[in-house]
Amino acid sequence: MLRVAEGSDLRARAERLDRDDPLAAVRERFVLPPGVYLDGNSLGLLPRAVAARVAQVVRSEWGEGLIGSWNTAGWFALPLRVGDRIARLVGAPPGSVVAGDSTSVQLFNTLVAAARLRPGRSALVTDVANFPTDGYVAGSVARLLGLDLVLVDPSQPLDLDRVLDRHLAVLTLSHVDYRTGVLHDMTAVTAAAHAAGGVVVWDLAHSAGALPVDLLGADADFAVGCTYKYLNGGPGAPAFGFVHPRWADVAEPPLTGWLGHATPFALEPEYRPAAGAARLRVGTPPVLSMAALDAALDVWDGIDLADVRAKSLALTDLFVEAVQERLTPLRVQPVVPREHARRGSQVCLRHLDAYPVVQALIDRGVVGDFREPDLMRFGFTPLTLRHADVLSAVDVLEDVLRTQAWRHPRFAQRSPVT
Amino acid sequence: MLRVAEGSDLRARAERLDRDDPLAAVRERFVLPPGVYLDGNSLGLLPRAVAARVAQVVRSEWGEGLIGSWNTAGWFALPLRVGDRIARLVGAPPGSVVAGDSTSVQLFNTLVAAARLRPGRSALVTDVANFPTDGYVAGSVARLLGLDLVLVDPSQPLDLDRVLDRHLAVLTLSHVDYRTGVLHDMTAVTAAAHAAGGVVVWDLAHSAGALPVDLLGADADFAVGCTYKYLNGGPGAPAFGFVHPRWADVAEPPLTGWLGHATPFALEPEYRPAAGAARLRVGTPPVLSMAALDAALDVWDGIDLADVRAKSLALTDLFVEAVQERLTPLRVQPVVPREHARRGSQVCLRHLDAYPVVQALIDRGVVGDFREPDLMRFGFTPLTLRHADVLSAVDVLEDVLRTQAWRHPRFAQRSPVT
Repeated sequence: MLRVAEGSDLRARAERLDRDDPLAAVRERFVLPPGVYLDGNSLGLLPRAVAARVAQVVRSEWGEGLIGSWNTAGWFALPLRVGDRIARLVGAPPGSVVAGDSTSVQLFNTLVAAARLRPGRSALVTDVANFPTDGYVAGSVARLLGLDLVLVDPSQPLDLDRVLDRHLAVLTLSHVDYRTGVLHDMTAVTAAAHAAGGVVVWDLAHSAGALPVDLLGADADFAVGCTYKYLNGGPGAPAFGFVHPRWADVAEPPLTGWLGHATPFALEPEYRPAAGAARLRVGTPPVLSMAALDAALDVWDGIDLADVRAKSLALTDLFVEAVQERLTPLRVQPVVPREHARRGSQVCLRHLDAYPVVQALIDRGVVGDFREPDLMRFGFTPLTLRHADVLSAVDVLEDVLRTQAWRHPRFAQRSPVT
Repeated sequence: MLRVAEGSDLRARAERLDRDDPLAAVRERFVLPPGVYLDGNSLGLLPRAVAARVAQVVRSEWGEGLIGSWNTAGWFALPLRVGDRIARLVGAPPGSVVAGDSTSVQLFNTLVAAARLRPGRSALVTDVANFPTDGYVAGSVARLLGLDLVLVDPSQPLDLDRVLDRHLAVLTLSHVDYRTGVLHDMTAVTAAAHAAGGVVVWDLAHSAGALPVDLLGADADFAVGCTYKYLNGGPGAPAFGFVHPRWADVAEPPLTGWLGHATPFALEPEYRPAAGAARLRVGTPPVLSMAALDAALDVWDGIDLADVRAKSLALTDLFVEAVQERLTPLRVQPVVPREHARRGSQVCLRHLDAYPVVQALIDRGVVGDFREPDLMRFGFTPLTLRHADVLSAVDVLEDVLRTQAWRHPRFAQRSPVT
């Protein structure tokens, strides 16, 4: 009976939080799926405004305007215009963010540019547990520039301190760890790297749109980020790159495509980088995907990221408490920083059979994802989730575990993409 | 009277060619603009199938399928599946072409991979008149790898011979010159570079979809190309990269994004490139733009590129002859190789006031573009143009020149994108 009573307390809390939620109406800006979608940290929901905008770009701007739309429909300006809209969400000044390419490409470009600011220094440092593409790209950059790739575990502060020395050229970390959801202290880490004479490249894939990011306040040198997660830009939506104004006119990105040139249409034989962050432009941007992202960013109009953060923490607190209260006997263990200051907007649950359990959940409309070796990962998107949804997800998970529904053979079959 | 009589001969020829055109019906697969669009070499027309496909991807695959669409809608496979469709059009075997990123990024990635196959050799050779992004990217790769960037003028065969020596690491050329429309002999140039011990990276931006390309027959090592020109993939549509099967399992592209990994979803800490051309994948592909390209490629079903080439040459012959016959006294001079074997699918016209003349033409529905310093550039897309259209364009150009309509001040104003 105790369990039920406590459950009721959580339910009352969820109801109260939903009633008082300043973001409650924002979810109507999205196409809402049935069930509980806890995978907005992999692919955000479709904002309602996107379909009409994309259709207009295809039929009118491309189909009728054709080549003239580079001017008349503003295609040429899109990477910087969309970049400015993202800048507001990550604490970057206007003109310092460029949208385009993939996160991998943006990371390569900014890592090389960053390392070139520190000639004679030998260490490119990254997180041993960083998202694979970050580690792979850092390894490639180290090879190209003859740097030593140094892996640290930044969840151990002393481990990071160990490498912040006179060898440090570049430190690159994910602001929020993609697996554990650990949020790094961007200001403190950046300051420590600067004190050692290095520059820092942050990956905001799991923080942009999930919580307030203050690139300028943290004195970050470069950053990259993803727009198809918490920014709802659509599958494979263009990534973004940020360069601090102090470096914008001296950085030398290696991807010297023509649209990063000072005067691209003069077609000069020599490369002269554009002034400011525009030098992070590379080739011709994918206009359809860029326009979808632009329309998707409309949902952020009038939204205060402090409200987003408060709701994110309320959602994850509620989830963790409900799981602890109801699922501990079912051998489920939350993997999430308890301290709010160290927590992103996701919670993992450890379970020996995480893979089939996630599949069984998806089958019942509760969508999360699996991360090797034994983690169920759930993302909490404050713009689209209600607190009641969180408890519904726990209800379904409890049922899947109690009834052992996940033991059905079809849930053991691995998909090519998980 | 002579002029009129000859003009009538050309008109009769155009009528006959249109009547007998095996591609005549193909234009109905496109949304056709009013006027005469001779800029399909900058941005191809919108194929009719695209709008519905993109709408379906947005509303159904993204909006409803959400993260599951990476499997169920085949998003994950798109870069290789679309690559295979392009492969057929450029003489590449299945599995050797990957769609994604921009041409600039594909070129960077393949140039580094190519140079790594020739350690100890010092020269990265490219065309002095190559499209700027190609030269800029080659310069950046040379700097990163410590190579000498060597510029040649491949329209002078002896100039190319000069650099095909034991220093040659990589030769990179555009198959068709973006300004002059000169078509290089891919087989002969590749053979000469191989004889010197080098490898070759071809840029097919102005040949893929414009004429038959035979990458395997020419023994090309790598190639990149653009899909928003003659392949009608849409503004900023994904580019493509080709790697010859002999290099596919040994090439080491530097853009080591996670989707080029052998087992991307195992999230291994070490980068192991995928088998074959899949290692040219980098980050998450822009699905909306990729789906538009996929639908656009439907127009090629059942089309023989020999017919495309025959029509392209007939169109450019007709244009050049009409211009010579009627516009020579108006100080217009064609810039195009006379030999068919050296000609791409475009014709430039030289005129002292090329910029305002192009603007005046656009104003009257004849769309070409301007290229510094004095060239009007016209692309001839065999799938969408009629021979009669070519003569209509010459009619308008003659009128613009005779009446000096181009002298209106509004045509002198430069747009940001020209």
